Amino acid sequence: MDTIDWQLDRTQASTLYKQIIEKIKDKIANGEWPPGTKIPSQRSMSDILKVNRSTINTALNELIADGLLEASVGSGTRVANNSWSVLASSAALWTPYTHRGLQQPNLSTIQKINTYEFDDRVIRLGTGELSPEFYPKELMQDTLRSIGEHITSLGYEEPLGLYPLREELCRYLARLQIAATPASLLIVSGGLQALQLISLGLLNRSSTLYLERPSYLFSLNLFQSSGIALRGLPMDNEGISLEALQAVPATASRCLYTIPCFQNPTGTTMTEKRRAELYALCAAKRLPIIEDDVYRELWFDSPPPLPVKALDKQGLVLYIGSFSKALSPGLRLGWITGPEPVISRLADIKNQIDYGSSSLSQWAVHRLLASGAFYRHVDSLRGKLLARRTVCLQILEQYFAGIATWTVPQGGFYVWLTLKKPVSLNRLFYTALDNGLLLNPGNLYDKQASQNLRISYAYARLDDLATGLYRLAELIKTYRL
Amino acid sequence: MDTIDWQLDRTQASTLYKQIIEKIKDKIANGEWPPGTKIPSQRSMSDILKVNRSTINTALNELIADGLLEASVGSGTRVANNSWSVLASSAALWTPYTHRGLQQPNLSTIQKINTYEFDDRVIRLGTGELSPEFYPKELMQDTLRSIGEHITSLGYEEPLGLYPLREELCRYLARLQIAATPASLLIVSGGLQALQLISLGLLNRSSTLYLERPSYLFSLNLFQSSGIALRGLPMDNEGISLEALQAVPATASRCLYTIPCFQNPTGTTMTEKRRAELYALCAAKRLPIIEDDVYRELWFDSPPPLPVKALDKQGLVLYIGSFSKALSPGLRLGWITGPEPVISRLADIKNQIDYGSSSLSQWAVHRLLASGAFYRHVDSLRGKLLARRTVCLQILEQYFAGIATWTVPQGGFYVWLTLKKPVSLNRLFYTALDNGLLLNPGNLYDKQASQNLRISYAYARLDDLATGLYRLAELIKTYRL
Repeated sequence: MDTIDWQLDRTQASTLYKQIIEKIKDKIANGEWPPGTKIPSQRSMSDILKVNRSTINTALNELIADGLLEASVGSGTRVANNSWSVLASSAALWTPYTHRGLQQPNLSTIQKINTYEFDDRVIRLGTGELSPEFYPKELMQDTLRSIGEHITSLGYEEPLGLYPLREELCRYLARLQIAATPASLLIVSGGLQALQLISLGLLNRSSTLYLERPSYLFSLNLFQSSGIALRGLPMDNEGISLEALQAVPATASRCLYTIPCFQNPTGTTMTEKRRAELYALCAAKRLPIIEDDVYRELWFDSPPPLPVKALDKQGLVLYIGSFSKALSPGLRLGWITGPEPVISRLADIKNQIDYGSSSLSQWAVHRLLASGAFYRHVDSLRGKLLARRTVCLQILEQYFAGIATWTVPQGGFYVWLTLKKPVSLNRLFYTALDNGLLLNPGNLYDKQASQNLRISYAYARLDDLATGLYRLAELIKTYRL
Repeated sequence: MDTIDWQLDRTQASTLYKQIIEKIKDKIANGEWPPGTKIPSQRSMSDILKVNRSTINTALNELIADGLLEASVGSGTRVANNSWSVLASSAALWTPYTHRGLQQPNLSTIQKINTYEFDDRVIRLGTGELSPEFYPKELMQDTLRSIGEHITSLGYEEPLGLYPLREELCRYLARLQIAATPASLLIVSGGLQALQLISLGLLNRSSTLYLERPSYLFSLNLFQSSGIALRGLPMDNEGISLEALQAVPATASRCLYTIPCFQNPTGTTMTEKRRAELYALCAAKRLPIIEDDVYRELWFDSPPPLPVKALDKQGLVLYIGSFSKALSPGLRLGWITGPEPVISRLADIKNQIDYGSSSLSQWAVHRLLASGAFYRHVDSLRGKLLARRTVCLQILEQYFAGIATWTVPQGGFYVWLTLKKPVSLNRLFYTALDNGLLLNPGNLYDKQASQNLRISYAYARLDDLATGLYRLAELIKTYRL
């Protein structure tokens, strides 16, 4: 987070340490840093403001002497609680509030990742996002020009989302043999929001969500915050284990969550046979399925098997898709389709929490689908992503042959790396960060996956990927982690 | 909701009633209408499909005879639970789920309003949205062309939102004497999302939210779904009553929510004096304030007093703004600013539920602010909106002089109408709907406001507004409601 969002003015008459004092006083006086706030470390202030640590130290000492700041061993320097009379009345006003809400904070490693993803100096070895080099600039430029001419108003959209976009998505789904209609499809702000709506609208604290282990969902606190239990089921290389699924008890409120194509984080794709068996078993057990298929279009040699939803004649499956992975996450656009009463319920909630998704994004994606440009874009993307995967596997072969094994994905973004020797993933994460590498440790996705890393070949520049993986291998080989 | 999303094919050899049967069978077989679903009324099917009701009746009777549908007196026709063996196993599968989630459904009147807002045949007399005629088409066209040239990737944004947009918003806030920095400002998908983040992140089921009565917030189930109590405080024509505020108990977790400018639904603006007194009282009581200022820019003769946030040196106020009211709701873009630890907490939650707002919308608004075009747009909008208010007040004078009184807003969208005689607002709502008028009854905003209507002069075409208000006055005068 950019807590230090100012720079020092070297043309000013006042000395640098006085400017620092004034800025911090402003922050406190404006209530931006209320009492109890931990202020940034001396090191980071010195880095960001480009002054000696001694200058920072002088300024902080003066503020401490004035009673505005308090230093305590081990917990850093904080805005003082009870010393500045002007501020005394709001002391720690918000602290209980920020600890009170229902929603749990993100896991601390995820918070770190979210922050460092915007630090240009680190190489991101696990980021689940297309590299900026894949951004179809000309295509988007044409699209924006075209929708600018077309749009005549940007009011609130219908509760289910822009109608012409829903029609286009139904045509897209028909290619996958899914019979959806505009009335049974809801536009959402990315696949994640579909999951949030399900957590708010269909499940509660007596519910259990069964899912693959490892799974992307374990890295979020989304369902847990609503008190919904997550139970991981083991996978093999054809997908989720049917034996484990068979043992799921017939309690009143449970769902199965699965990412059948190029699973996050393992890269595994569920076979056609497993899909059919899984559907039959769930139908027999009356176990609803949430099928998260956001990576589907990113296949390499041949398309993955049809969605489980294509087998569904009973309204058992809620099917989620997104444009974040194959086009651009910044559009924040996805969809969910399923039985109408379920979709109506989710639409009503979406209407309560954000009144719908950006119309600009909806019109842009509508245009890309209607013109066929989306399909051409994805076609060319597949080849480029395959080239990256190939290089990534060569690099792994070169540097990790003796120290790890890995999966060979047939699409998507991820390689699941298994280290041969145990490590402390926490120490590896921070040591790597000190060495300019941002990792996605396996235990984010499965607490027991203590020897795994999610490697993404989609994001980092190829030379960075090579440098980064080389450095990572050296760290693992030479450091005592 | 567009449950009937097909049309009959009059060129087909099969008779119309057979087509209807096939379509309904498809809906059931695909799981879009699971067992227990109430199917649309014969009247609406006949309207939408443009066939005689007798044709619909014949088709439905055949489906009932087949055991696919069930008719019961008083509750309409539903998809049968236990008669079609293929469907038997998924009977009512989802019904318990859609009743299970934490989030309560919207109020039924709100659901009706949300649906009828997309029916072109009705005149919307209460819609809180600018008329499509105010959409700045050329400006948006230029903006979209310009950002198309500028954007080089659309990845996930920083947790707080697009940095250059946050910088522009800080400049905008400085004009209002609010000292915000990019680190203390979070971009959200409209003002409503800011409230949702607060309900998830800062409050819980032991919290109480105090607010004006009537208030827009009473029409939502947002806070109530999290178990947060809403307590209305009376208003006078200067704003919320200080006497009532004085009596708020000093419990651990409470907040004040206020819309000080052109309040929704009363149109009242809090005076400068009341703002200062309110702030002093809240500071003394250590009562945090949520200031919802989304209508601020829409003033007529002179700008409203500075925000309460401008008085805030203690970090007591969270300040919410939006581009939905002054520009276009379809952008789904707003912001919230306050103490950094609070904003960080809300940003972390936003990141968990939708990974940020549409980058397209963020870049578009950035461009509009940075070029100054937003300010020019709002300037010209004010005059046009004032002209509408003037006409609206003339129409009210003409038709409602004997039967109601009303507020005279100095900005914003709303006139708060008080009928002189008691009515059943529920019956008025449905009678008006039968007569092609969509109303926002006062009791949505205050259960006791049983003689009030929220009238908006912002949305309907002026001739429609005149026709609609005339018809409404006639209804009130002649019908026994």
